[in-house]
Amino acid sequence: MSTFTPVSTLGEFGLIGRIRALIEGDAPPEDLIMGIGDDAAVYRVSDTMAHVVTTDALIEAVHFDRAFAPMSHLGWKAISVNASDVVAMNADPKWATVTLGIPRNMSVEMVDSLYEGMDRASKAYDMQIVGGDTTTAHALYISVTVVGEAPLSQLVFRRGAEVGDMVCVSGDVGGAYAGLKVLLDQRQALNDLGDAYEPELDGLRYVISRQLQPKARLDVVRALRKARVKPTAMIDISDGVGSEIHHIAAASQVGATIRVPALPFDAETRAVADQFMEDVDAWALFGGEDYELLFTVRPDDVPRVDAIGGISVVGTIEEATKGVRSYSPETGLIPLSSAGYQHSFGDGGAA
Amino acid sequence: MSTFTPVSTLGEFGLIGRIRALIEGDAPPEDLIMGIGDDAAVYRVSDTMAHVVTTDALIEAVHFDRAFAPMSHLGWKAISVNASDVVAMNADPKWATVTLGIPRNMSVEMVDSLYEGMDRASKAYDMQIVGGDTTTAHALYISVTVVGEAPLSQLVFRRGAEVGDMVCVSGDVGGAYAGLKVLLDQRQALNDLGDAYEPELDGLRYVISRQLQPKARLDVVRALRKARVKPTAMIDISDGVGSEIHHIAAASQVGATIRVPALPFDAETRAVADQFMEDVDAWALFGGEDYELLFTVRPDDVPRVDAIGGISVVGTIEEATKGVRSYSPETGLIPLSSAGYQHSFGDGGAA
Repeated sequence: MSTFTPVSTLGEFGLIGRIRALIEGDAPPEDLIMGIGDDAAVYRVSDTMAHVVTTDALIEAVHFDRAFAPMSHLGWKAISVNASDVVAMNADPKWATVTLGIPRNMSVEMVDSLYEGMDRASKAYDMQIVGGDTTTAHALYISVTVVGEAPLSQLVFRRGAEVGDMVCVSGDVGGAYAGLKVLLDQRQALNDLGDAYEPELDGLRYVISRQLQPKARLDVVRALRKARVKPTAMIDISDGVGSEIHHIAAASQVGATIRVPALPFDAETRAVADQFMEDVDAWALFGGEDYELLFTVRPDDVPRVDAIGGISVVGTIEEATKGVRSYSPETGLIPLSSAGYQHSFGDGGAA
Repeated sequence: MSTFTPVSTLGEFGLIGRIRALIEGDAPPEDLIMGIGDDAAVYRVSDTMAHVVTTDALIEAVHFDRAFAPMSHLGWKAISVNASDVVAMNADPKWATVTLGIPRNMSVEMVDSLYEGMDRASKAYDMQIVGGDTTTAHALYISVTVVGEAPLSQLVFRRGAEVGDMVCVSGDVGGAYAGLKVLLDQRQALNDLGDAYEPELDGLRYVISRQLQPKARLDVVRALRKARVKPTAMIDISDGVGSEIHHIAAASQVGATIRVPALPFDAETRAVADQFMEDVDAWALFGGEDYELLFTVRPDDVPRVDAIGGISVVGTIEEATKGVRSYSPETGLIPLSSAGYQHSFGDGGAA
C-alpha cells in the first residue's frame, strides 16, 4: 500500500459512506428493500412479509469498562442495542446470533453470566438466540446480529417524514449519558482511593441502569400499532436526539425544529447534571445510548399518541431549506449541531 | 464471582454445549427448525421456504497474521467461511452483515482493500452485504453473519446419515494446512533474516491460496441439486475430516469408517508434506480450513455423484456400536481421533 490515510480522518459516518459506495456499486437484488442507510437492512421473505437484519458490537475499553459493567448487564445491553435497531424499523426481533471474543482473564462463570443477561433480554423481547461463534481474543468483544420480521406494510424507514409532521420521543433522554458521567467519576474515585473506595449509588441507580441496561422500546411500537398509529419515519436514539433528527431530516429531505424545553428527562438525570454543574438540556439533546425512539407522526395522530402515554412531542418537520434547528427561550431558533455522541469509556487504542 | 474456572478447561465445544444448555432451556419457537448444533441455525420464513443464519469471526493473531494475509484475501475469507456454513445446509447464501473492529495502525486504504475482498466473495456466491457496524478496537477483527435461503424440502442437516450411506468429500483436503505450515515457516524466515528475507513461493502458490482464499463450495451443492442428489447429511470441513465425521456420526447416531488412502489431496500438498517430512495422509485427515464439503449419500446415488466429477467417496456409514474409525493398509481398522484442528497463528493472548 503506497498511501496510509488514518481511518480517523473519515470518522464513523464517513467510513460507512465509503463502504456503502464500495459494496453497493451494482444493481441491488430485487428482494432487497433497504441496504445500508437505515437502522437495519430489509429484505422481502414472502409476498407479504419482510425481514430486517442489524449488527452491533460492544468492545471492552471502547464501549464499556468491565470494572463497572456486570457481565449480565453487558449481555442484556448487547442484545438490547440490536433489538432496538429492529424495533426502529417497526419490526419485531425474532432471531439472534452472537460472536464472542473471550480474553484469558474471563472465567466460565463470567461467560455464563454474560449469556444469562443475553438470554434474559431475548426473553424480554420475545426473541431467541439461535447460533454463534466463540473464539479467543485480546479483550472481550461481543458482536450480535438480530433478525426481525414485519409485514411489508408495517415497515417504517428514516425517509418518510413530511413537512407538518410532529416529532416525538419515547421515554426520557439524557439518562444514559448521566450514567456514563457517574461511572467515569466512580472509576476515577476507585483509581484515587484504591481499597478505600466505596461506591455511592444513592440517587444514581436510575441513570446507571440507563447506561448499563438500556431497554429496546418494543413496548412503544406495539402500543403505537395497537393505537393504529404508523410513524412516518423512525430511528432509535443511540447517538442523541440532536444527531438522530439529522438522519431523519437527511433521509426524508426535510428540515426540522426540536423544541429543547419539550425534551423529556428524568429528575435523577437533572440532579446529576446539577451535581456536575452541566446543562441538563444539553444532555437530553446530545446524550447518547438511551435507545429511546425518535419518530414522526401526522398531526392527526397526535391525540392517539398522547393517549398512549410516555411519549413527548418535541418538534416539527419543516421545509428542507430551513435546515435542522433547535429552539429554546434562551437561544431562540438556532441551527442544531449534528455532532454525534462519542462512546467514551476509552478509545480501544485506536486513532 | 466466587469461582474462576478458566475457559480453557472446557474447550470450544464444551463452551458451546454449556451455552446451548443456558439459552435453549425452554420450549423453542415453533418456526425454529434448527438452533445451535449444526453448521447454521434454520427458521421457517413461509410455508415452503426456510432461512439459515450463521456467524463466524476472524481475529488478528488468532486466525490470521496480518503480515501474511493481504487485506483483500482476509475479506474474501471472512465471507467465504460463513457462506460455507450456509452451503453445508444445502442453502444459498443471500445476505451478509459485517462487524469490523479497526485498530489504529490500519489505514482507509486497507479498509477499502478488505471490503474489496468481501465484495468479490459476495459476488462469487451471488450474495450481498447489506449492513454492518464499524468500531475502533485493539486488533483487527472481522465478524460476519450470513443469511441464506432454501426450500424446506432441500435442507440437509448433520443428523440424516444412515447405515449403508457412502461418505464423500469434495475437492481436495490438507492443502489449507500445508499453506499454514508454509506461512508459519516464512514468518520464521522473516524473523530470522529481517531485510534479507525474500519470500520463496514457487510450488507453494496453491497451498497458500487454500489457506488465504478458501472457496465455499456453492458450486458443489448446485451440481448435486442439478444431478438430483440430495445428501443425507452434510457439514463443511473447517476443522478437518477427522473432526467433522465425528459431528455427523454423533448427530446421526451412527458409526463411520474413513478410508485414508481414498482421501483426496493435491500434488502440491504432498510435496509440502514431504518437505516438512510429515505424513500427507495425516494432513488430509486432520488438516483444517479447507472448507470443502463432507457429506453422505445413499449408495444408489454414487454413480450420479461420480458423474459430477471432483468428488471422492472416502468411507461408509456403519452401526453406531462400531464407532468412528479409520482404515489404511498400514494401520488396519482403528478408532479415529476426534481431535479438531487448532487455528494456530497465535493464541490472541487467551487461555
